[in-house]
Amino acid sequence: MFFKVLATDKQTKARRGELHLAGQIIPTPVFMPVGTQGTVKTLTPLQIKETGAEIILCNAYHLCLRPGAEIIKQLGGLHRFMGWKGAIITDSGGFQVFSLSKLTKISNNGVEFQSPIDGSKLLLTPEKVIKIQNDIGANIIMAFDECVPYPCEKDMASVAVERTLNWAARCLDSHNNEDQALFGIVQGSVFEELRIECAKHLEKMNFQGYAIGGLSVGEGSLLMNEVMDYTVEYLPPGKPRYLMGVGFPEDILHAVERGVDMFDCVIPTRNGRNGCAFTHLGKVKILNSRYKEDTGPLDEMCDCYTCKNFSRAYLRHLFVAKETLGLTLLSLHNIFYFQRLMQQIRDSIERGEFRSFKEQFFSAYKNN
Amino acid sequence: MFFKVLATDKQTKARRGELHLAGQIIPTPVFMPVGTQGTVKTLTPLQIKETGAEIILCNAYHLCLRPGAEIIKQLGGLHRFMGWKGAIITDSGGFQVFSLSKLTKISNNGVEFQSPIDGSKLLLTPEKVIKIQNDIGANIIMAFDECVPYPCEKDMASVAVERTLNWAARCLDSHNNEDQALFGIVQGSVFEELRIECAKHLEKMNFQGYAIGGLSVGEGSLLMNEVMDYTVEYLPPGKPRYLMGVGFPEDILHAVERGVDMFDCVIPTRNGRNGCAFTHLGKVKILNSRYKEDTGPLDEMCDCYTCKNFSRAYLRHLFVAKETLGLTLLSLHNIFYFQRLMQQIRDSIERGEFRSFKEQFFSAYKNN
Repeated sequence: MFFKVLATDKQTKARRGELHLAGQIIPTPVFMPVGTQGTVKTLTPLQIKETGAEIILCNAYHLCLRPGAEIIKQLGGLHRFMGWKGAIITDSGGFQVFSLSKLTKISNNGVEFQSPIDGSKLLLTPEKVIKIQNDIGANIIMAFDECVPYPCEKDMASVAVERTLNWAARCLDSHNNEDQALFGIVQGSVFEELRIECAKHLEKMNFQGYAIGGLSVGEGSLLMNEVMDYTVEYLPPGKPRYLMGVGFPEDILHAVERGVDMFDCVIPTRNGRNGCAFTHLGKVKILNSRYKEDTGPLDEMCDCYTCKNFSRAYLRHLFVAKETLGLTLLSLHNIFYFQRLMQQIRDSIERGEFRSFKEQFFSAYKNN
Repeated sequence: MFFKVLATDKQTKARRGELHLAGQIIPTPVFMPVGTQGTVKTLTPLQIKETGAEIILCNAYHLCLRPGAEIIKQLGGLHRFMGWKGAIITDSGGFQVFSLSKLTKISNNGVEFQSPIDGSKLLLTPEKVIKIQNDIGANIIMAFDECVPYPCEKDMASVAVERTLNWAARCLDSHNNEDQALFGIVQGSVFEELRIECAKHLEKMNFQGYAIGGLSVGEGSLLMNEVMDYTVEYLPPGKPRYLMGVGFPEDILHAVERGVDMFDCVIPTRNGRNGCAFTHLGKVKILNSRYKEDTGPLDEMCDCYTCKNFSRAYLRHLFVAKETLGLTLLSLHNIFYFQRLMQQIRDSIERGEFRSFKEQFFSAYKNN
């Protein structure tokens, strides 16, 4: 993996870059749709590709529970398993092991937990997490981190940072597949001192990229932006910066402004399945009866398959009639919307007009 | 609409024809995937087209209940509403009104029933059913018929035939859109005398095509074949013959042999959603643990998107993980399978080798 910054905005820290990865050049800032269980929910790989997405995020935690990392390895790795020819990043499972598992016991060695699928007792250590991600075979893999809930006492957050740094070093030590880039994850909750300490230490370890983890967990947009303000400064400018699990279009704009290059989030697909579509004017809740006879597309500015072929009235009918095609068509549109937003962001940075693009965006987009 | 028989098999009654419809030439025997509520479940119109399907069946009963025939008319008709550029046939709702509705009251005038969606009291008459289908705007529409359950006393079946004939005449009288072909439906349960009486009377009314209704309702394959044996004889050779709601690959082969040209069935999509795939060797139940590490496609003889891109192991994973993409990929494969089967049937009739094709089919296909 190779990362190159092509242009930096003059008024903000926004940057336009390129991620050279697995024979592809992925322009940044980039949004990565989420395919937790080895499938971006309701969409075929062909449909995902047609949204413009070139890299997706899958989850090592979910995939090691089911179908199992070794099975994926035997079947030729995740790209082949799921039929996705683009790039893949896997999350290490740090976030999931704390948020989804029961009876979690954490020690410096690792995390013991019960599988939510079959109740079996499992142990994840930094070494095991790297082995799992090596087996799965994504192009970018993540260090194993301890993700604290929000709000969190500083003492607890501090212990988690120490452990995250210790585990980060062990991940680096046990990772020996140079075809896979390994990213470190900055923790520290909303404490400036902890975030900076974590970022500084990780920077010295020389990861190939740096993620900001433990955000978008309930702290709110303002606090999230603050954390980015002081954290990004301590991340090396020549490496990609990845804000994990974010987010809404407005969050992405705020983060790009602060120098973040990569994003992933379930929002376009999850909201799509719940009947919520993103448009340049804001969200459309398709079950609203006002769309019953609406012949217009979800978004008049959109060129996606859904908008080119189907009216709001038809999409509403699909949701009212509980037809799966509705989930597919809204997910497809939403991912396309996010990809187009990132394209516009990249174009505006290249033109040196990111700030005015952001203002235009907010003047049209009503966050209802 | 115009129908032409191109070739007739010498050893059987199988025929190879063409349905000229809405600017398209649809080769017969043809299988029509079912899109009950204005969507072939889990598939986009683009995906349906890629299976080779050129005509689909939708249901006037379901569409008049939701979203309503007048709304579909206002929105430009069903083709535009659902974004399907191929041909459409609508079933009149005769079958559904008896099988799905509650508190059904039948009289010579029509059928009174309670909407299963909102409990409202509704009345369907032959005239209303034609009006609904005119509004929906399919290329082929069906007469309103009385469909009796199986088994059924001959007296009751006889009354239903009389009513079906009376309603057929009223449907013809009230239909005045020459862009839509109207088909009559032969009823009569499993009684030779009634089927023949019904077929003879309908033949005189000069419909543009003839359907055999009320089969595949529990009478079994042998009895169904018997009914076809004596019914098809009384249908005019120059008009298309449509066996409604059928069926499994083996049923289709038996019916083609008896001179049937058109088929529709939910089997490829419903079975697909239940994890059952059709292959040239028989059915594959994808949840079976034997496929856990199976790198092969569903069917080695198949060129569909699913078989070209995904292993049985991945498809099984999708079903185990309850991922919607599994439903889509198996539905897609199954419809493709049915389209390919019809193509093989047509080719074999052209070559005068239908019977040997049928034998080959059964020697490979294990009905497990």
